[in-house]
Amino acid sequence: MEQVIEKRIGISSLVNKIVSAEDAAALIQDGDIVGMSGFTRAGDAKVVPLALAQRAKNEKIKIDVYTGASLGPEVDQILAETGAIRKRGPYQGDPAIRNLINKGEVLYVDAHLSHNAELVRQGIIGPINFAIIEATAITQDGFLVPTTSVGNSPIFAQYAENLIIELNLAHSESLVGVHDIYIPDAQGERKPIPILNPTDRIGDIGIKINPDKVKAIVISNEQDAPSLIVEPDNETQDMANHLLDFFRSEIKAGRLTNKLAPLQSGVGSVANAVLEGFKTSEFEDLIIFSEVLQDAVFNLIDAGKVSFASCTSITISEELQKKVYGNIEKYADKIIIRPQEISNHPEVIRRLGLIAINAALEVDIYGNVNSTHVGGTRMMNGIGGSGDFTRNSRLSIFVTKSYAKGGKLSSIVPMVAHHDHTEHDVHVIVTEQGVADLRGLAPKERVPLIIENCVHPDFKQQLWDYYNEAVELTGNAHTPHNLEKALSWHVNAAKAGTMKF
Amino acid sequence: MEQVIEKRIGISSLVNKIVSAEDAAALIQDGDIVGMSGFTRAGDAKVVPLALAQRAKNEKIKIDVYTGASLGPEVDQILAETGAIRKRGPYQGDPAIRNLINKGEVLYVDAHLSHNAELVRQGIIGPINFAIIEATAITQDGFLVPTTSVGNSPIFAQYAENLIIELNLAHSESLVGVHDIYIPDAQGERKPIPILNPTDRIGDIGIKINPDKVKAIVISNEQDAPSLIVEPDNETQDMANHLLDFFRSEIKAGRLTNKLAPLQSGVGSVANAVLEGFKTSEFEDLIIFSEVLQDAVFNLIDAGKVSFASCTSITISEELQKKVYGNIEKYADKIIIRPQEISNHPEVIRRLGLIAINAALEVDIYGNVNSTHVGGTRMMNGIGGSGDFTRNSRLSIFVTKSYAKGGKLSSIVPMVAHHDHTEHDVHVIVTEQGVADLRGLAPKERVPLIIENCVHPDFKQQLWDYYNEAVELTGNAHTPHNLEKALSWHVNAAKAGTMKF
Repeated sequence: MEQVIEKRIGISSLVNKIVSAEDAAALIQDGDIVGMSGFTRAGDAKVVPLALAQRAKNEKIKIDVYTGASLGPEVDQILAETGAIRKRGPYQGDPAIRNLINKGEVLYVDAHLSHNAELVRQGIIGPINFAIIEATAITQDGFLVPTTSVGNSPIFAQYAENLIIELNLAHSESLVGVHDIYIPDAQGERKPIPILNPTDRIGDIGIKINPDKVKAIVISNEQDAPSLIVEPDNETQDMANHLLDFFRSEIKAGRLTNKLAPLQSGVGSVANAVLEGFKTSEFEDLIIFSEVLQDAVFNLIDAGKVSFASCTSITISEELQKKVYGNIEKYADKIIIRPQEISNHPEVIRRLGLIAINAALEVDIYGNVNSTHVGGTRMMNGIGGSGDFTRNSRLSIFVTKSYAKGGKLSSIVPMVAHHDHTEHDVHVIVTEQGVADLRGLAPKERVPLIIENCVHPDFKQQLWDYYNEAVELTGNAHTPHNLEKALSWHVNAAKAGTMKF
Repeated sequence: MEQVIEKRIGISSLVNKIVSAEDAAALIQDGDIVGMSGFTRAGDAKVVPLALAQRAKNEKIKIDVYTGASLGPEVDQILAETGAIRKRGPYQGDPAIRNLINKGEVLYVDAHLSHNAELVRQGIIGPINFAIIEATAITQDGFLVPTTSVGNSPIFAQYAENLIIELNLAHSESLVGVHDIYIPDAQGERKPIPILNPTDRIGDIGIKINPDKVKAIVISNEQDAPSLIVEPDNETQDMANHLLDFFRSEIKAGRLTNKLAPLQSGVGSVANAVLEGFKTSEFEDLIIFSEVLQDAVFNLIDAGKVSFASCTSITISEELQKKVYGNIEKYADKIIIRPQEISNHPEVIRRLGLIAINAALEVDIYGNVNSTHVGGTRMMNGIGGSGDFTRNSRLSIFVTKSYAKGGKLSSIVPMVAHHDHTEHDVHVIVTEQGVADLRGLAPKERVPLIIENCVHPDFKQQLWDYYNEAVELTGNAHTPHNLEKALSWHVNAAKAGTMKF
């Protein structure tokens, strides 16, 4: 065991830094700002946060926690429920912390995932007292090799005053070489990010660290919390079929080939199901350039449909974890894990001309999208990278089932109750009903496409009634709305549980 | 005269293409899609559109007009009022066409100004039957040299089936060399845009054209419609002072030096007045990297405060036109005019780390911004480049007076009635009352800063009442709103002319 550990810590002086999780957690002070590794439950520090949660049961401690994105239960459930988290950013997805956020007990800064690194550089997030980063190994050259995500770990490691490393032996050393760590210089002194193809490696195999900052190394042996993918159903299958048909029409129009363009796909069951739809399609030699690789991507690699995948995180089910991490050599030359500042960078996204597929909570008749707020007030997860990709992609597609709550709510409403992506950024909407291609259209040209192609039949007439009244009321203004009724569907849903009048 | 013209047309075969404006306008067919030069009333084609308007009085003709941004009266007033414009994009600012848009008589596609070139490449805008481009000269090497703006002319010239050139003799040939034309390749085959400093020249002095596409050259001799800058008043002066103080605090925090960072400033009197505020400040060696240079920039160059300015358009008052265009040699080495795809490119904006200063129509208590829609339904001008800059800048600042209509309306409302920039993109709000720095804050942390620092005293308590009730109603949710009342201020303004209850 000791030999295994020493093999993974290439700097011998650091071997002395190995301590228990409790001793490492004891270093954190009340009021600290802590940057943690982890992105969509992957590659997050696990044992130190648990030890910190133990401490927080008996001791007043409140810290600010910034990460790549959502974490597993150790932080966003167990630590959060002790009351030890004052502020959290830039993304979460756990019911426990979500509940605390919506009771006003945790402050949450929901942010574009490409923005965090700049905020750290400027000291807006910070000073970062501790970075806690899960690692596969520390090389002789002083590179910290992450595990299953990179996220914001490079910028945290660069700016944190102190480092705590969780060396996770559950991951094979064959992960070394899968990451590609490139950190831009300060704004104004920066060179172009030299990615010309999704397959380009431009940086180091790990995060260069200053060994003097390392205050503790804790040995762990834990897999990531597995993702809970819901199996595709008839409606997600319909959405996938509509999307594939839309791609076919783009090929006919000469805008795409059957290799499409590098694909980004949001996190969650719908996005995963839509990607699975490619498995039996004629599309091939597909490239993924995304935030998160979910099960579907590995299934598509196995099926010979996807030839390469770039990401900042791998979030997969327990079954896939066994298959992929037990066999990482098989996938290592087909995958790059990058910092989220790079995977989500507008420069790279626009240059490569991605196709972005993200999930919407609700959409309105003019094409505005709510990705985050249930009923306009309660935070669900966060905007994540959807804005980074949506704004800059060649094709920005939003997918949602046309209804929710067994048909009582329509996912297409007169006006979204919270705006994350405006009409200027949304190209295509896909529901199980069909596709609305909004590109190049004025607001009033979008309305019939959205209502006729995407809305559930139960709500079509009701939306037409709203729109026609708004046209009348405003004298056919640029964006007709009846502001007295624009949010009435949500008000009715809150009061009576339905958007049907 | 003929000698002058021949000197300006370097390709002798093209001299035969000189025709009258009427003959050139006769080439345009009903139903054509026309790309025109011009950006905020600068560098727009003038005499051909006027001749087309004359034709349209007696003949059914409807065309789609895409430009850089807003045009002078020839198109957006005179041609529009003949009913000859079916669809218009991506920006306008003339009361005449605005009125037609808000009566449903002109379709308007309001878009991020960096997005148009990609839409042309993809054929979403197009096929472009004609491009009508104002030029200073055509060089022997086949470069069309624009006049006072570049805008979307390069992409229009590249993709249009036919070209009509307005050779404008009102501009000195010394304009040749001021432009820098760089056109990215198709997405996926593209190199990094090699701008590392605002002063970098990376392209050609003009737009490479295919002479075979030139169907007509029309000689003109007209200055741009001058901008109508309203003189700074006490309140814009207060806003400028608040902004300068904010910059001073950023310097103290170590985030800026007294050279600040490359500045972008939106179009309009408020933005111009705010920039004028630098004249008597201690800041120096300032660099502008913006869309439009207004009067203030030239005054700052003259005052020795601004050392370089990059733009896509020069929109100045009549007085400044005489000074600048009568003396362009004096400014030529301090200015670059670029395509709007480059001036507004996320890649360049984020790399350079701009400070973006844009005007808001209204702002809400969580920091969402409405830039475009009066009362949520009537289009004012358009989003322009504000989204390109806001999303990607180091510092994204919005300025607005805290009230409108003599104090009856508050510019800070419970919920904006149209969303152009979401809470995720807005860093700082400045009114004549003060500054709210929202960076790194959760929604509920932003509320007291916005209300206490930016709101007019007449509306403070009313906003607190709204917020407190919303907190109560939602159980202190992430973003408290009372959806029944969120837009009630606008409803009241529409009905009773006031937001005071």
